[in-house]
Amino acid sequence: MSEGKVITCRAAVAWKPQEPFKIEEIQVDPPKAGEVRVKVIHTGICHSDVSACSGKFIGVQFPVVVGHEASGIVESVGDGVENFKTGDHVITLFLPQCNKCRVCQKGNSNACLEFMGAQIRGVMPDGTSRISCRGETLYTFVGCSTFAEYTVVSEMNLAKINTNAPMEKVCLLSCGISTGYGSAVNTAGVTKGSTVAVWGLGTLGLAAIMGSKNAGATTIIGVDINPEKFKLAGELGATDFVNPKELTEPVEKYLMEKYGGAIDYTIECVGQVATMTQAFESCALGNGVCVLVGVADVTALLNISPASFLLGKVLKGCLFGSYKSKDAIPQLVEDFMNNKFNIDKFITHSLKLDDVNEGFDMLKSGKSIRSIINF
Amino acid sequence: MSEGKVITCRAAVAWKPQEPFKIEEIQVDPPKAGEVRVKVIHTGICHSDVSACSGKFIGVQFPVVVGHEASGIVESVGDGVENFKTGDHVITLFLPQCNKCRVCQKGNSNACLEFMGAQIRGVMPDGTSRISCRGETLYTFVGCSTFAEYTVVSEMNLAKINTNAPMEKVCLLSCGISTGYGSAVNTAGVTKGSTVAVWGLGTLGLAAIMGSKNAGATTIIGVDINPEKFKLAGELGATDFVNPKELTEPVEKYLMEKYGGAIDYTIECVGQVATMTQAFESCALGNGVCVLVGVADVTALLNISPASFLLGKVLKGCLFGSYKSKDAIPQLVEDFMNNKFNIDKFITHSLKLDDVNEGFDMLKSGKSIRSIINF
Repeated sequence: MSEGKVITCRAAVAWKPQEPFKIEEIQVDPPKAGEVRVKVIHTGICHSDVSACSGKFIGVQFPVVVGHEASGIVESVGDGVENFKTGDHVITLFLPQCNKCRVCQKGNSNACLEFMGAQIRGVMPDGTSRISCRGETLYTFVGCSTFAEYTVVSEMNLAKINTNAPMEKVCLLSCGISTGYGSAVNTAGVTKGSTVAVWGLGTLGLAAIMGSKNAGATTIIGVDINPEKFKLAGELGATDFVNPKELTEPVEKYLMEKYGGAIDYTIECVGQVATMTQAFESCALGNGVCVLVGVADVTALLNISPASFLLGKVLKGCLFGSYKSKDAIPQLVEDFMNNKFNIDKFITHSLKLDDVNEGFDMLKSGKSIRSIINF
Repeated sequence: MSEGKVITCRAAVAWKPQEPFKIEEIQVDPPKAGEVRVKVIHTGICHSDVSACSGKFIGVQFPVVVGHEASGIVESVGDGVENFKTGDHVITLFLPQCNKCRVCQKGNSNACLEFMGAQIRGVMPDGTSRISCRGETLYTFVGCSTFAEYTVVSEMNLAKINTNAPMEKVCLLSCGISTGYGSAVNTAGVTKGSTVAVWGLGTLGLAAIMGSKNAGATTIIGVDINPEKFKLAGELGATDFVNPKELTEPVEKYLMEKYGGAIDYTIECVGQVATMTQAFESCALGNGVCVLVGVADVTALLNISPASFLLGKVLKGCLFGSYKSKDAIPQLVEDFMNNKFNIDKFITHSLKLDDVNEGFDMLKSGKSIRSIINF
């Protein structure tokens, strides 16, 4: 029995920004009150992990263990944890749901204030860390740190799931797929018969397309500078495709003309202010809604004309597709098991922890959609 | 009978940007098909008229007759006009409601596309003008041009009202009061028990405060650099007051600290990107809604961090308080007659057309809230 003892296990450690991971033996302390120690079974590689390791993500401190899209099994629980027990199948949540803060209690938003508290600074809610390597404290990433065989998370960052769910697939519901899908069905509120344009056909954008299709959009435009992404986008619901590199005019001008200024929803999944501006400019005057999903560099600023707002455009964004994380995950798992949406098409590669640097390179170069690390 | 004939009457003409008005005799042609000639009875002086004459408002061409907040009586109607007849009491609408364009038909926005068509360029929907002075064509302003004893407007820019309504008051429902009031009750959707902050305590801001109070907000913060505005703001519902000039820290920082980061709605009624940024920064992470109501210079750009959108803030704006103009005005007139809100407190001065330059100066210097020109 490992309960109550320090566990020594393998993890990918990012010692400095922009350096490759080193696979190390780390020490994982037992969970404190309100915490759960999880044996990680599968974890996806997400662009936010790449941003974190580049040093451009808000609050990240080094050395750090990143990774946040994980499924796993509860190894042990800390004092006062009543809703999890050893053996439960779980999914880690980068976005907590504390149910106590002003936002959680208000009910109309999922942006739990705990996210912007200790967790974004790389520590547990009590301000300390449970992980170390050769005596040196390691920082956590958004409360998860799942590029490791074991991790400790707050119970507010964990959802229990159906034990029959395929863990090698549903791990992706913990970030990319839910975020993109929800950005369409929740944040934008895509309506039947509408026109949607999606920038960036990685996991977020592809899931936004899948969500738009399920919400009844009839024209779904995929925008990407990598035309190799168009095939999969089409399989998931995109009807039209635009490669800005092939245009002789700005993409926003092309879209406004081609679709008569009537694109109801634009969803930005790239995370660059240039594409955010394109998306905002491209949505319809009068009733266009532009949703920002991609994560920009922490210092980036958006330059936009205020007049567009007077003329009816709305600019919003989301974390985790506006889903309340703990509440939503069990239902999303059930929906997947009932074939309401696809996960398989997103998984392009299966790797071992030792291949994590290769997985990063494939994501950065656009060769993969999602690589899953199997422990 | 003047019907079918050119009417010669007095008007305030702005011959060039930033020059005082000249009171001139102008010629007003009979209305063409779908148009109505209106004898103007009362018209308010609005900041948008000031912006237009300064040459900073989108699309304005000179020489122009500005003015748009008017009540009047129908003098005659053009071919095919079925819903207006000579003698009807009417209010002019700077924001048309054509009921035919994509936005009008979609139903979820009031930003009728006709507004951004011919009307914003200073001509009638058919591309021509009905007004001239000594043979020189005059341009219209947002389809209204009410600083004149007579004007011709499209029937899509006109609402019929109760003949018992006090025309010297309800003229203000045609722009400022409805815009501010609606920005709170419609665009922001202020909820019971919420906290609202309003920048700029002119007509728009005061009406936004009145709307916030009627919607049940319990804390309503008025922000202005002119503390003389605070008394009236308090009478209309403001509970707290902030003069940014008296602070030693940025107003957004002061507000975030004093109200615990929990200002649900911020409403910007100044029309400057600096105050827009303050309003956006000041609304609550998680569920804050920032509404832009003030009209900025046409070239102004907003610089904001995209991260705030991911954390749940929403940025929107409105024309005419998100009211569908023709549909809403008759009901707003009834609501006023049933004492649901106040107009009297907004009217600080009554003027003659010859005093229009004085009226402009008082508005610019903050000495007036609304001056009414009585014909």
